[in-house]
Amino acid sequence: MNVTIVKVGGKVVEEPESLDTLLNDFAAIAGNKILVHGGGRSATKLSEKLGIEAKMVEGRRITDEATLDVVTMVYAGLVNKNIVAKLQKRNVNAIGLSGADLDVIHSVKRPVKTIDYGFVGDVVGVQSDVLVSLFEQSAVPVMSPITHDGNGQLLNTNADTIASELACALGRAGCNVTLIYCFEKPGVLRDANDDNSVIPSITHEEFKEYQESGVISEGMIPKLDNGFNALRQGVRYVVITNVGGLKRGGGTRLEL
Amino acid sequence: MNVTIVKVGGKVVEEPESLDTLLNDFAAIAGNKILVHGGGRSATKLSEKLGIEAKMVEGRRITDEATLDVVTMVYAGLVNKNIVAKLQKRNVNAIGLSGADLDVIHSVKRPVKTIDYGFVGDVVGVQSDVLVSLFEQSAVPVMSPITHDGNGQLLNTNADTIASELACALGRAGCNVTLIYCFEKPGVLRDANDDNSVIPSITHEEFKEYQESGVISEGMIPKLDNGFNALRQGVRYVVITNVGGLKRGGGTRLEL
Repeated sequence: MNVTIVKVGGKVVEEPESLDTLLNDFAAIAGNKILVHGGGRSATKLSEKLGIEAKMVEGRRITDEATLDVVTMVYAGLVNKNIVAKLQKRNVNAIGLSGADLDVIHSVKRPVKTIDYGFVGDVVGVQSDVLVSLFEQSAVPVMSPITHDGNGQLLNTNADTIASELACALGRAGCNVTLIYCFEKPGVLRDANDDNSVIPSITHEEFKEYQESGVISEGMIPKLDNGFNALRQGVRYVVITNVGGLKRGGGTRLEL
Repeated sequence: MNVTIVKVGGKVVEEPESLDTLLNDFAAIAGNKILVHGGGRSATKLSEKLGIEAKMVEGRRITDEATLDVVTMVYAGLVNKNIVAKLQKRNVNAIGLSGADLDVIHSVKRPVKTIDYGFVGDVVGVQSDVLVSLFEQSAVPVMSPITHDGNGQLLNTNADTIASELACALGRAGCNVTLIYCFEKPGVLRDANDDNSVIPSITHEEFKEYQESGVISEGMIPKLDNGFNALRQGVRYVVITNVGGLKRGGGTRLEL
């Protein structure tokens, strides 16, 4: 079974025009597919309106109780259901899911070491059979980055990681998985200010070199870490690209 | 196929203690079941915090664009996903749905006559086969009162009506349906101030008499209208009760 997993985040999903383009191109992908989305900017905006201070440590949001409510509302509610409705319009039989729905993604609250991340979940299990069963009904999961611990607690979870974990679990279940990280830039860039400097393919060794020499910026590192992890666990293709690249091809392909 | 549909709203779903009791009792219901929830109080609270004025006409919320975002966040996100996680804790394989998910409930934006209700949807179609297919996988739908028009637009929809429409559609599909409206009061009361004055059963004729004589208050009328409509369309049992009544039985049974 072939499965394409597209992770979208950032501006792509939060600006109506780029979202429309993305959803057109996602709808055109043949076969089984999953859309994993973020929504951090909208969450930050809502937090600000509600006077909840957004606390970030090393690029990660600290999720206190009020912030958990905000991300649950924005990710699993506003962003997820609008995407689902817009996909239904495009004759894609979308079903919006959090990790709690059908118990599809189990996580544990991140243990407190030096930093207390609050209600942040680290994925410990994906029920790939639930996803396969949805594919068999021609359903298209749209996954928000909210998971649960099985004990009634929702947890905020990194969407890049969710995409990678879904890819790995489906790969282990024998699926032929393509994982596409779709963000603002056309791929991994040699020069952050030049969109024409896309690195067409990158090995893990090269990634480490680029990282050391500072070519690859902070924000890209989790995507690449997650991507290489997925490759190592049997995911067939991992590509980092932008909305245009979803249709046209291109971007940066990860290689072991 | 037997199906029990429980509609909960008001304080029941928004106070942790009554919600826990409700979910324990809902989890104990054998066989196929659906939970339909509201969340109006939380939506009103969030609107207030955001400085969005809640506009009500004849007990119905007027849904402008900002309010649609609020109810989508609160109903389909915060309330829905917390209920799903709490049911998973109770080993109920819950799946949170809006009407857009799997295209399960289609609605049309209410036409403007004397009042413009804004983004409010009137249900025009329920895909009962989608629900039956979920039952066959032992999944338990948890339905938020957000639907869609098939053209990418989410719509705010009365939860009592959704419960009734789901019951009717499953009844037409040959299911043996019980519909339970679960709210603050133990049933339809002869005296609104006396919880011991529950009317044990009520015919449509009696309902009309009670309505004319003012025994039945404004807020109950949509529940009863929806309930009698469901009975006429082949729903087997319609009961109005409170959280306690879900386990214990009792409440007011509607009869044709």
